[in-house]
Amino acid sequence: MANWFRRRPRRVDAPRLRPRSEDLATTRLDLHEFTPPVEEFLGRAAYVQLMLFENLSRAVSTAPTTAAKAAIGRAAEISIAKHRALADEITRAGGTVAEAMEPYTTSVDEFERTTRGADWFETLLGCYLTSGFLEDFFARLAVGLPESERERVESIYSSADEEPLLAEQLSLAIADNTRLASRLAMWGRRLVGDTMLVARSALGLEGTGTADVRAEPVFTELIAAHTRRMDALGLTA
Amino acid sequence: MANWFRRRPRRVDAPRLRPRSEDLATTRLDLHEFTPPVEEFLGRAAYVQLMLFENLSRAVSTAPTTAAKAAIGRAAEISIAKHRALADEITRAGGTVAEAMEPYTTSVDEFERTTRGADWFETLLGCYLTSGFLEDFFARLAVGLPESERERVESIYSSADEEPLLAEQLSLAIADNTRLASRLAMWGRRLVGDTMLVARSALGLEGTGTADVRAEPVFTELIAAHTRRMDALGLTA
Repeated sequence: MANWFRRRPRRVDAPRLRPRSEDLATTRLDLHEFTPPVEEFLGRAAYVQLMLFENLSRAVSTAPTTAAKAAIGRAAEISIAKHRALADEITRAGGTVAEAMEPYTTSVDEFERTTRGADWFETLLGCYLTSGFLEDFFARLAVGLPESERERVESIYSSADEEPLLAEQLSLAIADNTRLASRLAMWGRRLVGDTMLVARSALGLEGTGTADVRAEPVFTELIAAHTRRMDALGLTA
Repeated sequence: MANWFRRRPRRVDAPRLRPRSEDLATTRLDLHEFTPPVEEFLGRAAYVQLMLFENLSRAVSTAPTTAAKAAIGRAAEISIAKHRALADEITRAGGTVAEAMEPYTTSVDEFERTTRGADWFETLLGCYLTSGFLEDFFARLAVGLPESERERVESIYSSADEEPLLAEQLSLAIADNTRLASRLAMWGRRLVGDTMLVARSALGLEGTGTADVRAEPVFTELIAAHTRRMDALGLTA
């Protein structure tokens, strides 16, 4: 079992022990100007993580093979453990989990509805891409939290990762099936736009019509990471 | 975090540290005559637990309030952790998780389909009753496993319990709603029969038409525990 609350040394130039991605380890760009107050950060991040878990659990239930079901079950366990660790942070900060999450349920539920896949393959690709993007995003947004909180939150996101488990199942499904690959490539391109809106909303940028120039470099990197996730499956982003 | 593999002292007359129920702590009745080989026990128990988790995760997704979603999310985490601990036992015993579970998927999936609730309340009552019954059952069936395996499996089932979390949500829903209570009482009576079939199947008794007299005392106790679960919600079993 991972110790979610393991303290990590402060960030230095050397690569971190278990970086989520190479970008995250080496970049100087961050979102500290946009980091909301602790309660808002945790409430939103915890509810987003619960939604990501729900999508994974749907992929468990509809998995076409017992092997896929078992593998995605493991990913779902990792995902719900992250949600609970974030929920524990809400409690530690003196909040109530449900109350802290409540303001973000409508928009996150709407995202979930509009990005629900038409079948198991689309659902699973959605889990892979949106978990990857949004966990990366919240790990970066945590940079502006008070130091002890930031360390614990970064530790949550840099703990066990669902991504390799999902990539393996997707690769198996896509192999030798160009028709499916083509359909999933389209689906992945569709998802990234909606996923970015969830992230922008966390920056208070929704509805402004234009992107904030200070956040753009980070989004450029998040999209580059998305492209690499697509590439890893042989899909054109 | 619970240590799933914590060793426990051998069973003695004194109550156990964290008994699943009072029955389990004090009874002399057990199912050792019926315990199947390790691989069969673990494969079936792991797949049943995965099904119980899937039902809980459906209750998370369809929860009517954020507070209910958060509470049931915690129960789902406990449930999938038990599945994974059982899956780890399969690996430890030299098996492959998916292969070990495969022989039991058809009958367990069929149980899941025929006991799927019509709404969130029925789904949640189903989770509460079937998790309670089947986890009790497999904990009792483990008695005939080789000693070290038995201790670890009993430890898995006597770890954190979903039951109080689910009972609390159900009690809140039922309070002052006699129409719902009446409907759920009927649903609970319907579920117990199907749930017993899953248990009997694990004893190799399915299709025999008659119950095995040696197993009956244990089923009497499992049904008594079921009745107490219904009573705890103010429902007539």
